[in-house]
Amino acid sequence: MRPKIALVAFGGNAMLPDDQRGLQAEQMRNAQKAAELMVSIVRKGYELIIVHGNGPQVGNLLIQMEEAANKIPPYSLDVCDAMTEGSMGFMLERAIINELRRHSIDKEVASLITQVVVDKNDPAFGKPTKPVGPFYSKYRAQMLAREKKWTMVEDSGRGYRKVVASPKPIDVVPNGIIRELVEAGRIVIAAGGGGIPVIINGNGLFEGVEAVIDKDYAASLLAREVKVDLFVILTAIERVFINFGKPDQAEVSVLTVDEAKKHLADGQFPPGSMGPKIRAAVEYIEAGGREVLITKDSHLKAAMLNRSGTRIIASREEEPQ
Amino acid sequence: MRPKIALVAFGGNAMLPDDQRGLQAEQMRNAQKAAELMVSIVRKGYELIIVHGNGPQVGNLLIQMEEAANKIPPYSLDVCDAMTEGSMGFMLERAIINELRRHSIDKEVASLITQVVVDKNDPAFGKPTKPVGPFYSKYRAQMLAREKKWTMVEDSGRGYRKVVASPKPIDVVPNGIIRELVEAGRIVIAAGGGGIPVIINGNGLFEGVEAVIDKDYAASLLAREVKVDLFVILTAIERVFINFGKPDQAEVSVLTVDEAKKHLADGQFPPGSMGPKIRAAVEYIEAGGREVLITKDSHLKAAMLNRSGTRIIASREEEPQ
Repeated sequence: MRPKIALVAFGGNAMLPDDQRGLQAEQMRNAQKAAELMVSIVRKGYELIIVHGNGPQVGNLLIQMEEAANKIPPYSLDVCDAMTEGSMGFMLERAIINELRRHSIDKEVASLITQVVVDKNDPAFGKPTKPVGPFYSKYRAQMLAREKKWTMVEDSGRGYRKVVASPKPIDVVPNGIIRELVEAGRIVIAAGGGGIPVIINGNGLFEGVEAVIDKDYAASLLAREVKVDLFVILTAIERVFINFGKPDQAEVSVLTVDEAKKHLADGQFPPGSMGPKIRAAVEYIEAGGREVLITKDSHLKAAMLNRSGTRIIASREEEPQ
Repeated sequence: MRPKIALVAFGGNAMLPDDQRGLQAEQMRNAQKAAELMVSIVRKGYELIIVHGNGPQVGNLLIQMEEAANKIPPYSLDVCDAMTEGSMGFMLERAIINELRRHSIDKEVASLITQVVVDKNDPAFGKPTKPVGPFYSKYRAQMLAREKKWTMVEDSGRGYRKVVASPKPIDVVPNGIIRELVEAGRIVIAAGGGGIPVIINGNGLFEGVEAVIDKDYAASLLAREVKVDLFVILTAIERVFINFGKPDQAEVSVLTVDEAKKHLADGQFPPGSMGPKIRAAVEYIEAGGREVLITKDSHLKAAMLNRSGTRIIASREEEPQ
């Protein structure tokens, strides 16, 4: 019998939150906390795939590359993404192995460098909007725009930043490998940072592109490709809000796909935060997925018992009792 | 029937040679060359594991971390190793996928973040000898020695460098996963840079350490753990020399383990270059391996037909005809 498989997505800020300095020791402690949560899901009988974000980490790496640019040729964003898959994959993998050892669970962990294909004709490429990396002076920004053909925009009065496209993922390249590994009982860390974006060029070959793939969209795609049983999106809040900040503001414990789509159309969920999560959930359910759970790490255990979190489901008939 | 499996090890300088600047475009082209060679081995009917070094790449990354140290907290060497597994794994994987597509070979590639266990009591830790990362001024070197407990030595009159231990690898952590993947027909990139060194601490938990694992030793260990059929070590020369630089200098096409050990004892192979390769070969054959091939990338095809390279074998009776 095929095991029950859960896919859990969480942001890069779970390992490097805004209010920390980004010290390695801090990130290690955060990885440890994440590992405890992940292993608690394994102990509930799930096989597990983990997709993490990399926003703060790749931002830091781009700053490091820029600071040393006169000594060492910097890498492009796709290669930097791959590097954060390395550092974060290692920290998470080691913390999970240790947590498994503490519970005497005999389970191997695979952390995979993951390319994710995007459409070279994705309209997002015509309108890059996602700021990445350091703030530059106007002079340096103009130079980079000329030399590297980067799109530079002024950002929050602090200087100029590069903006890149955020295309939709269309294929998680090693999804066959990921499925086999997780079905064989391995914990798999994959598509970190939403994956390394690649296009298939005119010659049918893979080519890296400077872009940011939303990690919730990549997680949703992978959840569909592997046909997982439970898709969990961890975020900063316990439950999704409707009419947030208004007098009739309300937390919701269940959303059907139709309700979620209506709220999306009504602009209930801001594009930079809850919007992509709800959209990722809708795409997963519409492709036949059973249930998406959106909640905060500290409430995941309660949410898995239907006592917290927001569930997105196909219809009310399927609502858990 | 179990497929024939080859493990190929090559240095980080194959992707970033001394005479290049280290531009990403250069490394991509070198990855393409390496990919052509790797796929030629696949086309000879072998399943394939690839172990690459990371010397120049991790050196560059440590310089980038140091240059930005006043803005972004730097990572330790083990995390930097993981990051080069990301960047190099991605570049190689993409180039291999493209080369497979050119030949219409339907084969997936897995690039794994790889921890390698070393003994916390390895005598190497008492005597760190391997210089890594940037040259520092005397002042900064003293500060780092005090603050981070690094061992700093003056190096080649250009300043001070950190030195770390080079312990022997004792376990490639995900070797079960690597074996399964390669037996299932996947090309596996693993233990890049010799792997990320970890010790098992007094509580039985994994802990990262700042050390350098020789990639040929790690490759030899993995070759034994997976029981590969052919172990190839690529280097800068076509064949191993005996009495190098002396009047009776000679290239050798075959070395038995006993001959190799005698030459090692006689100091024929310098510790920084051919020594570890010969030792890695001896360890593999003594554990029951059939054959090690040491040669240069351009001569690998001829070497696989017994027309070039140096073979290390158990005894003359097994010498190929």
